[in-house]
Amino acid sequence: MHNPEPPFRVPPQTGGFPTAGFPTAGDLAGGDPAAGDALAGYLHARAGDFLRSLRQHEESGSDTEAAALAARSLRMASRRIAGTLHTFRPRLDPVWADGLRAELSWLSGTLAQEYACTVRLTRLLGALARLSGTTGTASTASTADRADGTAERGQLSMGAARAAALLERQLTLARTRAHSTALQALGSARFHAVADAVAVLASEAPVVPAPGTLPTAAGDAERRLLDAVAALPLGRAGHPYNAEALFSGLAGAPAEEAQDAPWHRVRRLLRLHRYALEVLGPQTDPLLRQAGGLLDRHRDAAEAAYAAAGAARTPRIAPATAYALGVLHADQRHEVEAARFAFQEVWQGSSTVRAAL
Amino acid sequence: MHNPEPPFRVPPQTGGFPTAGFPTAGDLAGGDPAAGDALAGYLHARAGDFLRSLRQHEESGSDTEAAALAARSLRMASRRIAGTLHTFRPRLDPVWADGLRAELSWLSGTLAQEYACTVRLTRLLGALARLSGTTGTASTASTADRADGTAERGQLSMGAARAAALLERQLTLARTRAHSTALQALGSARFHAVADAVAVLASEAPVVPAPGTLPTAAGDAERRLLDAVAALPLGRAGHPYNAEALFSGLAGAPAEEAQDAPWHRVRRLLRLHRYALEVLGPQTDPLLRQAGGLLDRHRDAAEAAYAAAGAARTPRIAPATAYALGVLHADQRHEVEAARFAFQEVWQGSSTVRAAL
Repeated sequence: MHNPEPPFRVPPQTGGFPTAGFPTAGDLAGGDPAAGDALAGYLHARAGDFLRSLRQHEESGSDTEAAALAARSLRMASRRIAGTLHTFRPRLDPVWADGLRAELSWLSGTLAQEYACTVRLTRLLGALARLSGTTGTASTASTADRADGTAERGQLSMGAARAAALLERQLTLARTRAHSTALQALGSARFHAVADAVAVLASEAPVVPAPGTLPTAAGDAERRLLDAVAALPLGRAGHPYNAEALFSGLAGAPAEEAQDAPWHRVRRLLRLHRYALEVLGPQTDPLLRQAGGLLDRHRDAAEAAYAAAGAARTPRIAPATAYALGVLHADQRHEVEAARFAFQEVWQGSSTVRAAL
Repeated sequence: MHNPEPPFRVPPQTGGFPTAGFPTAGDLAGGDPAAGDALAGYLHARAGDFLRSLRQHEESGSDTEAAALAARSLRMASRRIAGTLHTFRPRLDPVWADGLRAELSWLSGTLAQEYACTVRLTRLLGALARLSGTTGTASTASTADRADGTAERGQLSMGAARAAALLERQLTLARTRAHSTALQALGSARFHAVADAVAVLASEAPVVPAPGTLPTAAGDAERRLLDAVAALPLGRAGHPYNAEALFSGLAGAPAEEAQDAPWHRVRRLLRLHRYALEVLGPQTDPLLRQAGGLLDRHRDAAEAAYAAAGAARTPRIAPATAYALGVLHADQRHEVEAARFAFQEVWQGSSTVRAAL
């Protein structure tokens, strides 16, 4: 394991995160106690989720499905705590918040890899089946429940079958590696330090009194999201079949990454905004969730397209395999464009709804 | 030259097409003289276009551009006469009309090949430039004025450059062959028999008196069009990014041809309907022309996709070339889907406009 030196160190004087010395929401007198309660309460609850998931993961034993579910919950709790530490940083000790956030981001990033490989393989095998006309519908499977396409491969054209076998080999290897890396991470001293800090957070959240700042901080998160959305080429995305996502599709990954980056940024900011709303109240905006789901689809399709292009660079593959991977790459870039179109529809729709209220 | 025996023979007793014995529009007394005049007048005018184009072609000498323009006019006149003979068959001698129509279809089909190769090559090289990010916009060049992509090829990725070179080689060869075939056709006895028949048609059209049948025949053509449009999956085409055109895109040409066929059929029936309207009056429906243009684009993109897939089956090509051809194939199938979407928009729009009148 070659994890970099953690940028976040446990202060030696407390033997843990410097939370004990901070006032918690319960200590706050006057100011904005309800808001302080909301933030501390949210952090307590997510820290509880984190610890519960960790226990479930430890108890899963040889039940790989239970282990995967527990890892997923652990990842979701980590992301929510990290996002909250980021958005509500003004109400927290900034050094402590930044340090724990970086560690939680490392953890959720590490845990995400295995799941991402499964999703990518399922998506690519589903697309190859569709492109070969061996599935009933033209829609792409987006669930990750079945990544084993061996049975279907028999009905694919030779190029498609070889492409499927190549992708299955490469992504299964990547998934196995990601699984080992995740297990190593969960057994590391670095992880145990994070888990200790979250254990403290489950009962004591170091929220500092700063009246009225909770909605302000959430508002700042929303503004960052709106600014990032304003920078998107939504007008262009609103014209179906604009061929934008495949523009320079043969010019290599950097060209595609450059056009995808603003969308990925909005995806992250939308998630932070959603988490901030969760802190402020239990109500969730279904349009926001839908918009986030479309940006997830955008990201998944972009990564699948990238994987197809990468597989095509494998030495000594047959031209028929390369051809199928080219079709697959373009198909997934088309999905990227479709996700942008759908996001734009939902976003403009939600703006219209809000303006009418 | 291996043209099949013409299915349409010049009757020996007249030394030409049996038009002299037929009453012309001018001979018609009573019944529907104005309508008869309209049909005869239209046939006279198009036959005149035919003869003028033929003379221009003969006089073009070494001016290849003038020759190409003249061949295009000749083709357009041939198609219009053939279409009119088909639609208004009840007002004409059916054996004569069917015979001349078959010969004119052979002629326009033969003349179309060279132009189609030029259009296809321009479209494919334009798409490769766009896919390589070497053109300013993401829109596909649809004009055929420049098919030489040599200068641009320098900026393409290796796979794209090789694919462009391969397609240029294959389509230039096909174009040269089509050019020879067209020249041979224009010098053949079969063509001279057609030209003689059209020369007679320029002054005498064998329109038989049948009161009121002109609008009826045009109405039948419109009904065939409407029935064919009703059989199209317009609901599906109206959902952007339905991925239908690439469904079974790796299953080989027959699967794609099967889903394209109903659209090609509508394209032909729409053209017949437009020609029938030309006979009835000078007014043209811009929406009909636009819809026809979109179905031309549908056909062009489908044939370009087919050419890309065919080039990928060339023995001993590099995987990078095959990959680029796969991306290109998928890109052109997206154009097919985009054309269906746009056709559906125009069609539903025109229906709404008509219903509101």
